[in-house]
Amino acid sequence: MNSNSDSPIGVFDSGVGGISVLESLVEKFPRENFIYLGDTARLPYGTKSAETVRKYAEQSLEFLHKQGVKAFVIACNTASSAFLEKSYKTKPVYNMIECGVREILESSKGKKTLLLATKTTVRSKAYDHSLQASGSKIPFVSIAAPLFIPLVEEGLLDGPVVTEVLQHTLKPIQREISQGELDLCLLGCTHFPFLKKEIQNFLGPQVLVRDSTAQLEALFLQDEKKGLVHLRNSSEVGTLKFVLTDSSEHFQNFIHQRWPQRHIEITQI
Amino acid sequence: MNSNSDSPIGVFDSGVGGISVLESLVEKFPRENFIYLGDTARLPYGTKSAETVRKYAEQSLEFLHKQGVKAFVIACNTASSAFLEKSYKTKPVYNMIECGVREILESSKGKKTLLLATKTTVRSKAYDHSLQASGSKIPFVSIAAPLFIPLVEEGLLDGPVVTEVLQHTLKPIQREISQGELDLCLLGCTHFPFLKKEIQNFLGPQVLVRDSTAQLEALFLQDEKKGLVHLRNSSEVGTLKFVLTDSSEHFQNFIHQRWPQRHIEITQI
Repeated sequence: MNSNSDSPIGVFDSGVGGISVLESLVEKFPRENFIYLGDTARLPYGTKSAETVRKYAEQSLEFLHKQGVKAFVIACNTASSAFLEKSYKTKPVYNMIECGVREILESSKGKKTLLLATKTTVRSKAYDHSLQASGSKIPFVSIAAPLFIPLVEEGLLDGPVVTEVLQHTLKPIQREISQGELDLCLLGCTHFPFLKKEIQNFLGPQVLVRDSTAQLEALFLQDEKKGLVHLRNSSEVGTLKFVLTDSSEHFQNFIHQRWPQRHIEITQI
Repeated sequence: MNSNSDSPIGVFDSGVGGISVLESLVEKFPRENFIYLGDTARLPYGTKSAETVRKYAEQSLEFLHKQGVKAFVIACNTASSAFLEKSYKTKPVYNMIECGVREILESSKGKKTLLLATKTTVRSKAYDHSLQASGSKIPFVSIAAPLFIPLVEEGLLDGPVVTEVLQHTLKPIQREISQGELDLCLLGCTHFPFLKKEIQNFLGPQVLVRDSTAQLEALFLQDEKKGLVHLRNSSEVGTLKFVLTDSSEHFQNFIHQRWPQRHIEITQI
């Protein structure tokens, strides 16, 4: 379908994780129209094979393409690691891996960077390959944190369960943490920013904890200057539409809590 | 497809949970042929809507029907709560809710029974309705334990994370536990038997912790006497076939650890 500057930006993820990305996009670009696809019928992606995740990602892109979006945001690192192409049906695709790598290159002070991500993202080595391709020599360690996702999905964002899960997950790099060998932690899953405060507390003040959304915004502005994407020229606040593949009261509550003042359209396919 | 006594028994679940059911069936009926469908591409079911889970259950039954099974076992309480019919395409369907209710009726000593299950099972009230229909007056309380499933899927079966998750999950009935008001806990999700020891430790010796597999075996024997299902008449050990909807190394390791001596066929569709 054809698109113009009024066309929506299509954002997708399997569940609520991508909402952390959408939130920052809506804040930075309030006039844009957004359509968010939550593939809740098949969530989570992070424990599934790369082939299956790629198939799901392509189906999601195709659905958003049919809605006439002007650009795609794969607001899920796992899906990004399985679909690294920069365009789909001639429209730009923004993926979290590229943003994350830009963040590492910008924020690392030369000590070790810790990547926290899903099993599928870690196994894909997408971050390792992209960093290598950039010529970076930043020392880099990846840890899969599969239990973080159900914590966020359940809204359990602090307290003793979270502390024990952090302890368990980060045990393999306990020595590096206590010896001050890390200076950056990249949250390589869009669920994880919801646990940022606890992760920061656990790692200590010498470690900068970052997610990829600032780089995503920077990429949008950069591409606008290049004429690759056209941001909306309007004084009105844009629209927020959500499409879910499963009916999920939990997801709907999550959205309404985040934008209590906004008119929000939610449909199920 | 037609079936006879040599035809396999078809067992399905979204992930590894149903393996706890298959294990006990294989032990009790070693001569039977089994085919296990793990819908790993869409797991877990327990956080999805009843309509979506019913659709997935019907697709799984249809797949197993095409493999010529002689009976179906829905080795997942969530899928059972969404598909309560006793037959599919004229062949018997064994579901976990019926088995669980039989276990409660048999094992309760009249104090309160605690059901631990997924969100979708608790929300369905399938246990409540089945108990009522049986005329039972056993006092009954349900708790959704969504975090137990990722623990089992990750193989995290004891230690401080498990203790904190138990503490968090069972907080709403802490008073009943400490005042000795419970005498039975039914594990109403096929993942939970893998955590049985820790759940038993947490609830204390006055609470009997049971799953539904003994009743499933009893139902099979009862139906054989009635001529509803024909068990295999052979001196040979049966075959074990697994079909997965996503390639999962984790799942394959899980199976091989459980039956290290058996020839096992695993395919992906």
